[in-house]
Amino acid sequence: ALSTMMATKPATEEAMSVQKIVNDNLPSEEDTLAERDGSMRVKMEQMLREAQISITKAIEEIDGGAKFREDAWERNTGGGGKSRVLANGKVWEKAGVNLSVVHGTMPQEALKAATERGATRSNNGEEVPFFACGLSCVMHPHNPHCPTMHFNYRYFETEGGEHWWFGGGTDITPSYIDEDDMKHFHGTYKEVCDRHDPEYYNKFKKWADEYFLIQHRGERRGMGGIFFDDLNDRDPEEIFEFCKDAANHVVPAYGPIIEKHKNDAYTEEQKQWQQLRRGRYVEFNLVYDRGTIFGLKTNGRTESILMSLPETASWLYDHQPEAGTPEAEFLDAARNPREWV
Amino acid sequence: ALSTMMATKPATEEAMSVQKIVNDNLPSEEDTLAERDGSMRVKMEQMLREAQISITKAIEEIDGGAKFREDAWERNTGGGGKSRVLANGKVWEKAGVNLSVVHGTMPQEALKAATERGATRSNNGEEVPFFACGLSCVMHPHNPHCPTMHFNYRYFETEGGEHWWFGGGTDITPSYIDEDDMKHFHGTYKEVCDRHDPEYYNKFKKWADEYFLIQHRGERRGMGGIFFDDLNDRDPEEIFEFCKDAANHVVPAYGPIIEKHKNDAYTEEQKQWQQLRRGRYVEFNLVYDRGTIFGLKTNGRTESILMSLPETASWLYDHQPEAGTPEAEFLDAARNPREWV
Repeated sequence: ALSTMMATKPATEEAMSVQKIVNDNLPSEEDTLAERDGSMRVKMEQMLREAQISITKAIEEIDGGAKFREDAWERNTGGGGKSRVLANGKVWEKAGVNLSVVHGTMPQEALKAATERGATRSNNGEEVPFFACGLSCVMHPHNPHCPTMHFNYRYFETEGGEHWWFGGGTDITPSYIDEDDMKHFHGTYKEVCDRHDPEYYNKFKKWADEYFLIQHRGERRGMGGIFFDDLNDRDPEEIFEFCKDAANHVVPAYGPIIEKHKNDAYTEEQKQWQQLRRGRYVEFNLVYDRGTIFGLKTNGRTESILMSLPETASWLYDHQPEAGTPEAEFLDAARNPREWV
Repeated sequence: ALSTMMATKPATEEAMSVQKIVNDNLPSEEDTLAERDGSMRVKMEQMLREAQISITKAIEEIDGGAKFREDAWERNTGGGGKSRVLANGKVWEKAGVNLSVVHGTMPQEALKAATERGATRSNNGEEVPFFACGLSCVMHPHNPHCPTMHFNYRYFETEGGEHWWFGGGTDITPSYIDEDDMKHFHGTYKEVCDRHDPEYYNKFKKWADEYFLIQHRGERRGMGGIFFDDLNDRDPEEIFEFCKDAANHVVPAYGPIIEKHKNDAYTEEQKQWQQLRRGRYVEFNLVYDRGTIFGLKTNGRTESILMSLPETASWLYDHQPEAGTPEAEFLDAARNPREWV
């Protein structure tokens, strides 16, 4: 959800036309705002918009019922985006994919807060002009045997390119563990990672296990995936290619799992367990997710930020699954992250 | 939920027996830990425990179905409590009343963070020995015409009594506005307030309207009530009497509203609207409620802190009630607090 964070950076420049920022169709050389400032802005925005379109198309096909609805939105402090939301589908209860393309100026503290490591980027305390774009997504299926999936890929740079970085990741949140599914999901991302750097997968898998921890529960919201932030240790073109590869493997990593389980039978008890896990998802997003909290507290577009919340969630007092059940197995894996591949 | 906050202050003293802190029956002069340290500790703990017992008894009678289950718990860093939870009743989906009696030491920053005004209480940077007790409660009924109710009354003091204060309040969160109900609820608390200080009601009603704001929505979670914190501007005995009066009027303020509506017919749409309002309740508690956030981030007992969350909640993308509907009327009152009495 860090792209929602970027969509909401405080900015003092004049309002911009959202039509100039995010185009009705694919961005072209002529009408992309970003073009005037450098090719990575153009490339990243275009890649993310293409990914938004292709992923939502693939998801609609798997769903076979509902269609995504698109809302263009703008912030009059500089920026805008396009939210695509599918509600009450055959497979998905709620699925949202949000593109943000934002520019403006931000305070030094916001620049500092924007990265995991809080790197200080000195500029004599002045407001920092920046550009940011990101694509974030959460999809919550009805069937408790179908996992929730989240991804986010984003690019940030300050005016003149003094500071820049990429961030992102894709992670999966089942209610029940199907080991083959987890091997497939993690395996797909391991292959993606390995094509770009043999150290990426181990590093980013561990980072996801750390990031998605619900600290007050001592458990992760799900079974992880990859997560990275503040990535700027090599040629930006190389990192861009990695992000593109990762974004383009959302559907191959997630789609087959949904196809496999979308018609699985389930019990009321399994649905209730899914609802409790959705409650945990809400706890993570509202208490710990940096992008969500930052977005909400800095006047981001609430509906786009909270698209990530499930349509339904539940909390029961002191619920403890019985030892030896699939629910207890899930909890064990949420408390002690496993190596899947 | 600030009593949950107090229940979770970082403390470095040795673990205490929870049986010494919170007794199985009403605290007596003999076996109350607090007695050795001063009469206000004893009085407040005893008053809160009596209120917990009498309120849960009255609620069980109104419910006519489920009973409260009591869990005693302790923190090995100093303190403990008793949680009473009613689940799946005839009237209430989930109701929790949590008593915390805690002592230990806390860092200066925690002392500062413990009050709304963040008053600095200098002590040369050393750990501050403290005592705190509080009773907090949230009750979520099934019927969308029956409001959710929350209250919290608490007392805090540092060792030797250098610093002390009371905090608390009772507030109501309907899904639909029944003006007579709101007049009754606010009127009951205005009468309570007026018995102690003619300025209390206006001041504390406004404070509730400010505190229970979901900032990113620009709306309150409900229709308010009274809220106060850091109250220490007069003889503690006087403030104690006010807290006691307020705690003892939870049932008279809330009970008749539930009796009036507990058998009201409702539609699926009304239930869905209630679920959306429950989602807002979750947003407030997890994003803004000081006690909840502080408790979760300082290793409080998660299940007692999150007792406040509803059993079920819902989020729909960009839901807007139609103008002129009761749902729109509710939102208007949540955005523009009214004077009910």
